[in-house]
Order: sequence, then C-alpha cells, then structure tokens
Amino acid sequence: MATPLPNTLYLGSFVHSKTLTELEYLHDTAIAVDATGTIVAIEPLTPSTPTALPARLGWAPSPATTTIIRAKPGSQFFFPGFVDTHLHAPQYPNVGLFGASSLLDWLNTYTFPLEASLSDPAKARPVYARVIRKTLAHGTTTAAYYATVDVGSTNLLADLCLAAGQRALVGRVCMDSDLSPAYYRDEGPEEAVAATLASIAHIDRIDPGGGLVRPVLTPRFAPSCTPALLKGLGELAAQRPDVPIQTHISENVGEVALVREMFPEQESYAGVYDAFGLLTGRTILAHAVHLTEGEAELVARRGAKVSHCPCSNSAITSGAARVRWLLEKGVVCGLGTDMSGGYSASVLEAARQAVLVSRHVSLVESEGEGAKLSVEEVLYLATRGGAKVVGLEERVGAFEVGREWDAQLVGLGVVDGEGGLSEGGTDGEEGGVDVFGWESWEEKVAKWVFNGDDRNTRRVWVRGRLVHERK
Amino acid sequence: MATPLPNTLYLGSFVHSKTLTELEYLHDTAIAVDATGTIVAIEPLTPSTPTALPARLGWAPSPATTTIIRAKPGSQFFFPGFVDTHLHAPQYPNVGLFGASSLLDWLNTYTFPLEASLSDPAKARPVYARVIRKTLAHGTTTAAYYATVDVGSTNLLADLCLAAGQRALVGRVCMDSDLSPAYYRDEGPEEAVAATLASIAHIDRIDPGGGLVRPVLTPRFAPSCTPALLKGLGELAAQRPDVPIQTHISENVGEVALVREMFPEQESYAGVYDAFGLLTGRTILAHAVHLTEGEAELVARRGAKVSHCPCSNSAITSGAARVRWLLEKGVVCGLGTDMSGGYSASVLEAARQAVLVSRHVSLVESEGEGAKLSVEEVLYLATRGGAKVVGLEERVGAFEVGREWDAQLVGLGVVDGEGGLSEGGTDGEEGGVDVFGWESWEEKVAKWVFNGDDRNTRRVWVRGRLVHERK
Repeated sequence: MATPLPNTLYLGSFVHSKTLTELEYLHDTAIAVDATGTIVAIEPLTPSTPTALPARLGWAPSPATTTIIRAKPGSQFFFPGFVDTHLHAPQYPNVGLFGASSLLDWLNTYTFPLEASLSDPAKARPVYARVIRKTLAHGTTTAAYYATVDVGSTNLLADLCLAAGQRALVGRVCMDSDLSPAYYRDEGPEEAVAATLASIAHIDRIDPGGGLVRPVLTPRFAPSCTPALLKGLGELAAQRPDVPIQTHISENVGEVALVREMFPEQESYAGVYDAFGLLTGRTILAHAVHLTEGEAELVARRGAKVSHCPCSNSAITSGAARVRWLLEKGVVCGLGTDMSGGYSASVLEAARQAVLVSRHVSLVESEGEGAKLSVEEVLYLATRGGAKVVGLEERVGAFEVGREWDAQLVGLGVVDGEGGLSEGGTDGEEGGVDVFGWESWEEKVAKWVFNGDDRNTRRVWVRGRLVHERK
Repeated sequence: MATPLPNTLYLGSFVHSKTLTELEYLHDTAIAVDATGTIVAIEPLTPSTPTALPARLGWAPSPATTTIIRAKPGSQFFFPGFVDTHLHAPQYPNVGLFGASSLLDWLNTYTFPLEASLSDPAKARPVYARVIRKTLAHGTTTAAYYATVDVGSTNLLADLCLAAGQRALVGRVCMDSDLSPAYYRDEGPEEAVAATLASIAHIDRIDPGGGLVRPVLTPRFAPSCTPALLKGLGELAAQRPDVPIQTHISENVGEVALVREMFPEQESYAGVYDAFGLLTGRTILAHAVHLTEGEAELVARRGAKVSHCPCSNSAITSGAARVRWLLEKGVVCGLGTDMSGGYSASVLEAARQAVLVSRHVSLVESEGEGAKLSVEEVLYLATRGGAKVVGLEERVGAFEVGREWDAQLVGLGVVDGEGGLSEGGTDGEEGGVDVFGWESWEEKVAKWVFNGDDRNTRRVWVRGRLVHERK
C-alpha cells in the first residue's frame, strides 16, 4: 500500500463475537489502531481519551495527527469485516441465473461458458473489479476466491484485490478430467500443476509477505480432477505448508454418486481428498451438505474447515446443510456466498439464509429444535468462524489487541414522528433497517441481520485502510 | 385524490405476467393512461405515437398537455405493482425479531404487546406512516393489512393509506377468546362485531366507492375467536357481500392441534371457517402450510384464496407450504410478506423466498422436481395472482386495457469497463442488480428477482397517481 496510514482512534459502540453463542457489546469505548493497521488498545472512552490515549501510546506529539472516527451514538456501531469463505469471482455476472438446474447441469449450462470467456482480460477486468467493489460494499473484508483455469485471469484478480485493498485468497482453478468440457479444462495434470505454480509465483511476487493477498491451491472438486492431478496437488501442498487449499465437497447427491463411481477405491468423498493429502488443517471445504457420520468425523479429525453456503444450497437445490451437527462434531465452520451458485454478494444475506435454512433443518424430526442457528451464531460464522476457516484467526474476525483493523461501520435508520428518518440519510440512502428508538442493542443487531444491506455498511476498512465509503 | 391526473403516455419496455408460467415482454410499446388512472390503449411505439395516440384518444388538443414517461432502453422496464396479500401494519417495528420462537410463543412474546401499544395514536402514526412509505418504496401498490383490535388505530391506518395513495384492504382485528391476553382482546363477541362495524363505517365514509381503500373482515384466526364471534362475523359477511374476509389458517402444527381441541365438533381447521360462513370466494387465507387433502379440496371448492408467506414460514419455523400442490388443487395463490412473522417489507423478497422454499419442498421425496416454482411463477403470484387473492383481478395486476395503472418503473445498474456503473446512478444509489450488457431480458428479470431491492424500484404509481419516486 502506497500511502502510510495515520494512527487512528475509533470511538463509540463496538459489537463482535466473543464466542459462538455470544456477542459482546462494547459501548463508550475507544479502539486505537496504529499505522500498521493493528489494534493496539481497547478501553473505556472518557473525555480525556482523545488526547491521553495517543500520548500514552507514544503516538505523534500533537493530537491533531491522530485521526478520530466516531460512531453515532445509538444508531451506528463498528462490527468486524465479514469473511466470505467461498465464492467464484468470474461467476458474478450470473448471480440469480440458475433456472431449475442443479449442480452438474448448472455447471455446464451457466458456469463453464462464462468462466472460459474470462480468459479475455477485457472481459475479466470489469467483472472482477465489480465483484471486488460489490463485496467490499457489503462489508466483505476477506474473500476466498476461485478465479478461473486461466493463469492470466487469475493473476489479474489477485492484482485487482491488492489494488482495492481487499484481503483475499486467490486460487487458480485446477480441473483436468473430462467432466469439464474440452474448451475449458487443464490439458493434463502436469500442465495444471505448472499453471498453479505460475499463479502462486505471481501472487508471492506482488504481495511478498502475503499480508493482503495469498495464493490457495484450488482443485475445483474431485470429479473434475484426475487422480494424477490430485496427487500432484497433494505433493505441492506438502511442499508449501503456508498455502491453504480450497475445494468443494458433497454438495449434491448426484455429485456424491459420481465421486463414488470415479474413485471406487476410496471409501468416501472426504476419503478421496484425504488419500491425496488434501484434507488438512488448512483445507476449506465448501458445502458439506451430504457428508456421512464417518466423513464428518474424518473432516474433524484432520482439522479441515467447512464453508456453509446456504443461499447456493437452496437455490440450486443441493440440500440443507446440518451446521449444528457439523459444529457438534467439532468441525470449524464459516459462511460463503458461493456466487453464483449463491445469488448474492452479501455475507449478511448468507447469514440470514443460514438462520432460515437451519429452521428447515430443525423441521426434520431427527434434527429438532437444537438445529436452529441464532443471530449470534450466524454472525460468529460470518466473522470469527470465517477467519478460522481461511486460516486468519490470529489476524482478523474480532476486536482484540494484536488483531488487524478489518471492520465496518454499520448505520441504521432512525424513524421520526411522521414516518420519515431523523437519522440515516435521505429517502434515497436509508437502507433496509428502521429503528424506532425503543429497541435494545440485541434487537438492533437482529434487525440488521434480517433487513440490512450494503446501504447500512457506511465504511469499510482492511488492515486499517479505508477501502469503501458510501457517498 | 385532490389533484386531477394528467393524461399520460408510458413508453418503452413493459413486462407482466400473461399466465402463471409466462411473462410477456412488450418492447417499444406505448401504454396510454387517462385522467382516471385507467389504461386506455396499448400499442407498438412508433415515432408518431406521442402526437398521434393522444389525438386519436381525443385527449386535450395540444400534445403538451400529455405527460410522457419513458423507460430507458435496455436497463429499465415497467412492471405491475406488487400485491402484498398479507401483512400486519402494527408489527412493522418488530421485523427481524423472533429469536427461536414459533407461532404461539411468538404472538405472546413479540406481537401482542406491540400491537396493544399502538392504541396510542402518537405511537401508531409513525409506525403506520413508515410501513406505508416502506411498502410503496418496494413497489407494493396494493396491501391487505391487518391493523389492531383498536378502532381508532385501524381507522388511522386507513386514513394514512388513502392520503399516501396506497391501495389497501384495512381490517380491524377480531379476537375475543382467552388465547389472547386480557390486556389485548375484544371484550366479547358483540363488542367485537360492533367495533368492526364502526371501522367499516369509517372506511366507507372516507373512500365511499372503495376505489382505493376498503374494509375487510378480520377474525385473527380461529383460536383467538369464540364460536359466538365467528358466528357474528359470518352473519356480517352475509350482509356485506362486498366486504372481503381475511384470516390465518394452518400455519403451525401446534396451532392446528389447538384448533382441533377448541373446535372438537368441526372436522378440520378449514371446516371451522366453513361452518361459520367465513370460507368464501372472497376469503384470504394466510399460510395454509399444513392443510390436509380434504381441506385443500374444500378451500378450492369454496373458491377461497391462499396468501403464501414464505419468509414468515421459514423464520418462525412454521414449515414449507406446498404451493404447487395448492395450485394443482385449483386454489388461487398470491404472496404475502406477513410482516413481522416475515422479516421483510418487500414482496420481491417474498418472491425470492418462494423460489427457495419451493426447492426445499422439492427435496421431499413425495413432492419432487415438479414442486419448484420458477421466476415467472413467483412474479405471477406477486402480481396477477395476488390481484385475484384480494378480489381486484379486474382492476390491477397486469397491463391490459381497462385495468388501472398500478405500476412500478424498475431500473437496473449497467456495469462499465472499470467495474463502475455507466447507468443506474452513483455508487450510493445503484441497487443490487448489475447488468453487464449481454443478458437476455429473461436474465435481467431473474437478476432483479434475486438481487433487486427498493433502489431498483425508481417510481411507483397507483391508479395513475405517482405515489413514490426515488430522489
């Protein structure tokens, strides 16, 4: 990042996940973020804070050199930036387009043609620029992206993330089996590994420390990879223990049957990844809708993580993932928008749908009431849980000294006596959330989860840098 | 309405439901709407239309006295206004607040206290003004409202709908059984009928022809009414065949069991309403999630209509209504937001959730693929179907000569080469839908259904009157 950051004090109300089931509400609080974008102090706000705290931190001698950002009392709060643990950047133009399809026909009808076409950078640039801008506007400070098979297109996505200041995992998609059409696949396993290495080398070069953008090994999913490719990627994973892995698992019953047929020597779908050294503590598994007991236990044992994608699972009729069951098995879970299997760029929408889908799960007799996910739980998945899924649990996902300032300022509309808004902007910019003044903070947050949209996300920071601001 | 309307020509692209499964796309078209708000001509747009059509219609001699409103080619279209066939205006402040509750505990915890408090007009006014403004902004041109038990509060809602120009059914809620708390119920059946008559008289007086606002008989639901009250309302329904009826049915399994217990002499829940003369061709039944075969057939035989409320049914874990099954039984269906059982003011959100819930239904083996609702079908339910549900099928819901101009102008964002927008406003006002330029019209509409919000609804008209415009 070119411009150095100012030391900054954030003042007001802060809300973040303390545990899976508990949000912490810090009111009248000050958080100090230094020029590296790191949280260096969290303490109660007093009248002397704006001068005393910078002095105590040894920041510049004059308080004027400290930037101060306040959340409006009652209607605004700081919240950790969202972590989108699974999405396909090139598919963004297809959001909402899926008809009555399910996974395998959806890939051939909607997805492969679009992804293939983005090897043209003139077509890819506006798509990627738009998806980054859109996800940032929705408060996504970290995104685990699948790019395409094309190295140039993948590298372009990494470049654009870095330029926009979005924290990202960027993966070149590996797929060499004839499940994929001849016009859109790797030529063979060796070519696939070489192309992957080329993309990793590019990302290592543009962001050497991986402070913002990192590569990720991305076998699309077992059926689109030959055993030789899975083997090659497993060896690469062993050579580069710093590089995470992402793939799909057990999204759809037809896909599960296909894996059984293609890999008859393996006991299960999870077993395929495990056999090739790809089921690890740094593996992100999208979906996990139809895992068996044994598979869930294997996933937990290996410490692999799950990206729950409720919008996608409902839209393309994959099923309803049993998140409570996964959590109880000890599997770490986060949320993914899975655009464009999922129809929305918003992790908040994924959180909302995670609540709703969990109600459908709870209606299944064997699951029951306990399956319901609360507002607190889905917000945990969207932030602290997601940070664990992408291996950034020490850096983002919560407000703690030593973590980096990846955050959003959320603002709600305050209704006046005539049904207009006394706060929260004009009619054109009010967002979906109306507060009448008598709500508790827990209620304000629930209202935000169910009716919030990008208008409520007023500003977004990554590593202390302002990366989005509503006009 | 105080000010007379100008004669108006609407020019450009129009989309509306032709049948349940088919949207009609009328491009380069002109629709003429006269000073009464009625559609008087629909024809292909030619260069001479703006002068020749008004002349042919015998409108004022000078074309300057005709208002002309154009949809931008490619990114805007006119669509019929939405019909929200079921919502509770007083519950609007509670949108998104339901925790892990289901129907009966939700009523006692969240709903009754709020509704009771709105007998204070100083509290009711901003709530009602806001819900009207909000639903209009989301393109709801017709709303079937439940108000509260209080006559004054109900009449205030009717007054505000009329002033805002929203087409509405406004019902005073009848509930005299001890299911409801002593602080919030009718004193007895006679008092309930008298209060209902008082509210009907008020609405008849403020809008004598019922051109915009109409009364509706509103027994809350069977368990909250004594047999004597249901009998009284059945008699009232017979005396006033011009007044529709709205109530809830078979939303939740606990509720169904309660009805069986409270009305042991009736064969079924639907049978209760039928026994009291309340199951008629002008009855709107909200939910209908757990109807038996026999009940669905009875509902169809009586010509009663169903308001499908998917957001609510998922949120408070009522179940997944089998809409395809109802349609195949010959039951006319529309969509309801059911605020605040439902969390959103948007019929478009209800349409989206209707698609998603239908996918969960399709995963049940006995239902299968055929249960899936398409984009075309949910938009039919939201407009033409909804118009039938509320008894306005000859006046609204589609673009046809003789129907009234209840419509919305929908605008989509057009992405430019750098990922910004070349059309559709600034970053602050772009809405959720991005168009890249290569989409078919069918794809544009699907994108709108899945990512559209109130920002995409640029203007809204009811009976030819502009009732909402984005700044």
